Amino acid sequence: MLYPKNPLAQTVIQLCKAKNIQHIVISPGSRNAPLTIGFTNDSFFTCYSIVDERCAGFFALGIAQQIESPVALVCTSGSALLNYYPAIAEAFYSDIPLVVLSADRPRYLIGIGDGQTINQKDVFANHILNSANLKLNYEYGPKNTNEGEPAIIKSIENKLERILGVKQEIDEENETKINTALNKAISGNGPVHINIPFEEPLYETTDKLEVKPKVIDIEVRKKKIDDFFIQECYDDWNSYSKKMILVGVNHPNKIDQHILDELAKDNSVIVFTETTSNVYNKHFFNSIDKMIAPLSEEEFQELQPDILVTFGGLIVSKKIKGFLRKFQPKHHWHIDKKNANDTFFCLDKHIEATPNQFFNSLLPRLTHFVKSDYKPHWSDVKSVRDEKHQAYLNEIPYSDFKVFDSVLKAIPEQSILQLGNSSAVRYAQLFDLKKTIQVFCNRGTSGIDGSTSTAIGCAKTSKKQTTLITGDLSFFYDSNALWNNFIPNNFRIILINNQGGGIFRILPGHKNTKKFETFFETTHDLNAKHLCKMFDFDYVTALNERQVKTQLKTFFAESNQPKLLEIFTPRTINDNVLLDYFKFIK
Amino acid sequence: MLYPKNPLAQTVIQLCKAKNIQHIVISPGSRNAPLTIGFTNDSFFTCYSIVDERCAGFFALGIAQQIESPVALVCTSGSALLNYYPAIAEAFYSDIPLVVLSADRPRYLIGIGDGQTINQKDVFANHILNSANLKLNYEYGPKNTNEGEPAIIKSIENKLERILGVKQEIDEENETKINTALNKAISGNGPVHINIPFEEPLYETTDKLEVKPKVIDIEVRKKKIDDFFIQECYDDWNSYSKKMILVGVNHPNKIDQHILDELAKDNSVIVFTETTSNVYNKHFFNSIDKMIAPLSEEEFQELQPDILVTFGGLIVSKKIKGFLRKFQPKHHWHIDKKNANDTFFCLDKHIEATPNQFFNSLLPRLTHFVKSDYKPHWSDVKSVRDEKHQAYLNEIPYSDFKVFDSVLKAIPEQSILQLGNSSAVRYAQLFDLKKTIQVFCNRGTSGIDGSTSTAIGCAKTSKKQTTLITGDLSFFYDSNALWNNFIPNNFRIILINNQGGGIFRILPGHKNTKKFETFFETTHDLNAKHLCKMFDFDYVTALNERQVKTQLKTFFAESNQPKLLEIFTPRTINDNVLLDYFKFIK
Repeated sequence: MLYPKNPLAQTVIQLCKAKNIQHIVISPGSRNAPLTIGFTNDSFFTCYSIVDERCAGFFALGIAQQIESPVALVCTSGSALLNYYPAIAEAFYSDIPLVVLSADRPRYLIGIGDGQTINQKDVFANHILNSANLKLNYEYGPKNTNEGEPAIIKSIENKLERILGVKQEIDEENETKINTALNKAISGNGPVHINIPFEEPLYETTDKLEVKPKVIDIEVRKKKIDDFFIQECYDDWNSYSKKMILVGVNHPNKIDQHILDELAKDNSVIVFTETTSNVYNKHFFNSIDKMIAPLSEEEFQELQPDILVTFGGLIVSKKIKGFLRKFQPKHHWHIDKKNANDTFFCLDKHIEATPNQFFNSLLPRLTHFVKSDYKPHWSDVKSVRDEKHQAYLNEIPYSDFKVFDSVLKAIPEQSILQLGNSSAVRYAQLFDLKKTIQVFCNRGTSGIDGSTSTAIGCAKTSKKQTTLITGDLSFFYDSNALWNNFIPNNFRIILINNQGGGIFRILPGHKNTKKFETFFETTHDLNAKHLCKMFDFDYVTALNERQVKTQLKTFFAESNQPKLLEIFTPRTINDNVLLDYFKFIK
Repeated sequence: MLYPKNPLAQTVIQLCKAKNIQHIVISPGSRNAPLTIGFTNDSFFTCYSIVDERCAGFFALGIAQQIESPVALVCTSGSALLNYYPAIAEAFYSDIPLVVLSADRPRYLIGIGDGQTINQKDVFANHILNSANLKLNYEYGPKNTNEGEPAIIKSIENKLERILGVKQEIDEENETKINTALNKAISGNGPVHINIPFEEPLYETTDKLEVKPKVIDIEVRKKKIDDFFIQECYDDWNSYSKKMILVGVNHPNKIDQHILDELAKDNSVIVFTETTSNVYNKHFFNSIDKMIAPLSEEEFQELQPDILVTFGGLIVSKKIKGFLRKFQPKHHWHIDKKNANDTFFCLDKHIEATPNQFFNSLLPRLTHFVKSDYKPHWSDVKSVRDEKHQAYLNEIPYSDFKVFDSVLKAIPEQSILQLGNSSAVRYAQLFDLKKTIQVFCNRGTSGIDGSTSTAIGCAKTSKKQTTLITGDLSFFYDSNALWNNFIPNNFRIILINNQGGGIFRILPGHKNTKKFETFFETTHDLNAKHLCKMFDFDYVTALNERQVKTQLKTFFAESNQPKLLEIFTPRTINDNVLLDYFKFIK
C-alpha cells in the first residue's frame, strides 16, 4: 500500500480509520497533499473531491446528517479553511459531527509574509467542540531540501527540542490531541477542527507505515435517570391537566412509536410537531402556525400549558415561540443528552437523557390518564382549521401556497425531503405530509447558504430518493453545489422561483417601493435553465397550476440525469395569499 | 428625510457619515432592516445590494482597494456573517479597510434556541483590527409588542440598568466603541467588525434624528524618521556594493518616480519588481523568476545581496523567498508604517515610514554611488534571458505560456488589470507589461476564492477599464460574482480554461494518474458559456493561437455588455512548456 511519507499525516489518517471515519471530502491543494495521498490510497476510505470549500462543507454535513457519524473535510492552508465556516456553524447548532482537517504551514512560516497563510489556530473558536492545534516535530523534517527552507531556524528548533527532550512528547501530545478531537466529534455530535502543520516536501510516499499511534477509547458514561427525579416528574405529570409536548428538529426513527402512540391517547397531552420533527400520529398537531396564528388572547390563555415538554433541535415556528414566551408554562422540561436551550425563559428541568429513556421511565408508571378536555377541545379546533384550509385552497389563485400543496402531495412515499430556508421550510409547515417521508432542513443557523449542497450529500449517501424544495435566493446562493460529480440520477430539485426573497414580503417592511425590492426582496429575473445545462440536470418548468400538476406526474420517475423542476409563481400575489390564509382559517 | 426609528442604527449610520464612509454593500435580511433603511434613505451613501455575502465581501474589498478608504458591509444575523470571512482575511493581510456591520439579536435571545442566531461576538478574532460588540440599551426598547418578546426579562434588565445608572453609560460606551472601530479601519487600513444588537420592531421609521453621537477624531501622530537612524542606514548603504530592493504588492502611484529613477542609476543597486509592484524603470528587474530560476549555487552566491530593502505587501515569487532564505543578506530592512514581516528570517531594521519618506531622507544624503559591477553584471544576464525568452516563445506550441504572452500584450494602456490566483498571477510575472497598466491581485491570503468579485468592485469604482485574467477553478469558484447589478459594460474577463488546476501539474505530484487528476488537478469539462448567458455577458472563445489574436483585436472595444473571452488551452502540454522554459532560458 502507498502511504504519505509524512509521519503526522500517517498518524491523522490512522486515527481516523481507528475511529471508523470513512467519508472524506477533499478540496484541492498542495499543502494538504500528505493527507490527500494518504486518504485516497487507502480503500477503507470513500473520498470525494469538491473544489469550492463552502459547498464541500455542506456536502459533508449532508453525508454526516444521514450516517449520524463524523465525516472528515480536508483542505489546504489559507482562506480555503474559512469557506467551511458556514457549514461548521450549522453543524455546531444542529449537532452533526464533522472533522475538519486543515493543512497548515509550520509555525515558523506563519505571520512572516509567506503566501496562502493565515492564522488558522482556533479560528472557529466560537462554534467548535474542540480545536486541536498540532505541532511539528522537526526530527521528522527533511534533512536537506533545495526549496530554501531556513535550515538555520529548523536546526535551532531541533536542538531546542532535543535539549528539552520534547521530541517524543510532541508526538504523544499530537496523538492525544487528535484522539480527543475525534472522540469529541463522536460523543458530542458536533464539529471539531484539527490543524496540521506540514513541512515540505509534501508529495513523498512510502510503502510502509512508520508510526503506530495510540488509540484512546471514548469514555462511556452510562447515566441512568435518577429514580427520585422521575418520581418528581411523575408527580407533576399527574397533577396537571394541560401538558404540551413540542418537538423540534428530530432525526427520523429516533422516538419509539409506542411512546408516541401512548402520548397520543392522553387527553391531557397535546403534541405539537413540525415537518422537521419526523414523528407522526393522527392525534398530533402537525401544523403549529395553522393552529395558533388565528388565536385571540383568551384562546392563548386556554392553550397555555401547565407543563411544556420539549425535545429535538430548533423550532421553526416563530409564532409558537412568541406564544410560549408570553404565556409561559408553569414548568418547562427539555429532554436532551447535551444541551437545554431556555427558549421560553422558564426552563426548570433539563432532563439529560434521550426522549426514549425518559418516556420509557415515566410512562410505565402512569396508572391512569389525568382527566382533561385539553386535547379534545383543540382537536375540534384543528378539525375546523383543516376544513377551512381545504376551502381556502379551493378559492385562491395560483401562488406559492397553492404550489406547495401540489408539490408536497407529490413527494414520493419512502423518500427524503430536504427543505431550503427560509420560505420553503415555513410553507411546508402548513401542509400534511406522508408519514413515510423523512424531512431534513438546516435549522441550526437557518441559513440560506448551503441547502443544495447538504441535499446532495444526503442524496449521495442515502438509498432513498432525495428531493430538495428550495426558494430561488437560496438556490442561486449555493449554485456551486451542482459542481459535484456525485449527484445521483434520482436526485430532484423543486425550485420555487418567486423572483426574490418572498419572505420579506410577509414581514412588516415597506412593500412595493424600489428600495424595498432592491435591498430587502432583492428581486431578479434569473432562472435555473443555464445552470442545469452547465451541470447536466434535466430541466423542466411550470408556470401555472395545470403545468405544475402535469410536471409532477412524471418528475420522480427513473431518469438518466438528476432533474430540476422550476416553478415560477407570481411574486406580488404570494404574500397576500399567505397573510389572508391566517385570517381565513380563523 | 427618513430615518430608522432605532437609535443605535441612527448612531452607527451617523458615525459612518461623519467618518466619510460612503460605499455601503448590503445583503438582504430582516434583522439588519434598521441599517438598510437608514443607509438607503440617505443620499450621502452609495448603496449596493448583493445577495451572496461571500461575493459581497470581495466586491466591497474591490471598491476599498480602489478608493483606499473604508467600505461598509451590512448583513443580517446568523451564518450570513460567516460568509464574509474569506474577504475579511484577505483585507487583513492586504491592508484594505473594510467595516463589517452585522445585525444581531439582543443578548437574551442568543444561545437559547432562537432561529438564525450564532455567537457573533469576536467571531473574526484571528483576522480583525478591532471588534466592537455593541450593547442594547433597553430604555430604547419597545414598550409593548405583540410578538411575544419576554417582557419580563426586558423589564428586569431595564430595572437593573436603571438601578446601576448605566443607561447613559451604555450609549456612550457604544459611541466610543463605534468611533474606535471606524478610526482603526481608517488609520490601520484593515477590517473591523461592529456587531449591533437590534430589538424588534425592525422596520419602524421616523422623520427626525433622535440621537447625536459624539465624533472622536483620529489621533494623528506624525513621526519623523530619526536622524541618527538615517545616518546609520546611510553608513551601511555606503559600505556595501550589493544592495537589492525587492518590491511586493504595491498600490500604483505610491512611490515618487524620482526616487525610482535615482535608484535605477545606482550600479550597486538591483531593483526586483513583480507585476503587482506597480513601479517601473527600464533598469529594474521586472521578472524575478525569469532571472533566478535557472541559477546555480555559485550564481546565487554572486546574486546574494549585502543589504536587502523590501517594501510593499506579499511577494508572489516563491523562488526568491527560497533564494533569500538560503542566501541571506547581511541586513534586511523592511519599510512599512505598520508591519514588518521577517520573511527571510534576517530582518534587522523595521523602518516605520513610507518608502517615500525613507528614500527622500536617505537619497539626498548620498554624494556618490558605491562603485559596483552588481547591476551591470545582472543586467547582462537579463538581456540574455530576454532574448531567450523571445526565442522560446517562437518555438513552443499553443499553450498557457503562449496565451499569456498574447493576452498581456493586448491589455489596453491606462487600464486596470486584475489577476486571479494562482496560475494567472504567476504566469503574468514572466512577461513585460505596459507601464501605464495598474495591476491588482488578492495576494493577502492568495486565495482563489474572490478574484472575480474583487475585480467587479474595482471595475464599478474606477473610471478606467478593468480586465480580469483568471484561471478556470478560480472563475467557477466565484461564479456568483456575476450575480451583480453593478458590472460596467467595459468590464472584461479573460478566462484561461485549462480544464483544472494547472498549477498542480507544475508541482512535484504524481501526474497523469486518475487519483492525481481527481483530487489535485480536479479536472472538469465546464465552460463559461452558460454563466455568460445567465448573467448577460457577451461570450467569445478561442481555441488556438490565431483565434486568440483575432478575438483580442476587438475584445476591448466599447460594448453594450460586459464581455468574457474564454481561451481553452491544452491541459497536458501546459506544464511541460512552463517547466522547459526555465531550462531553456538558462
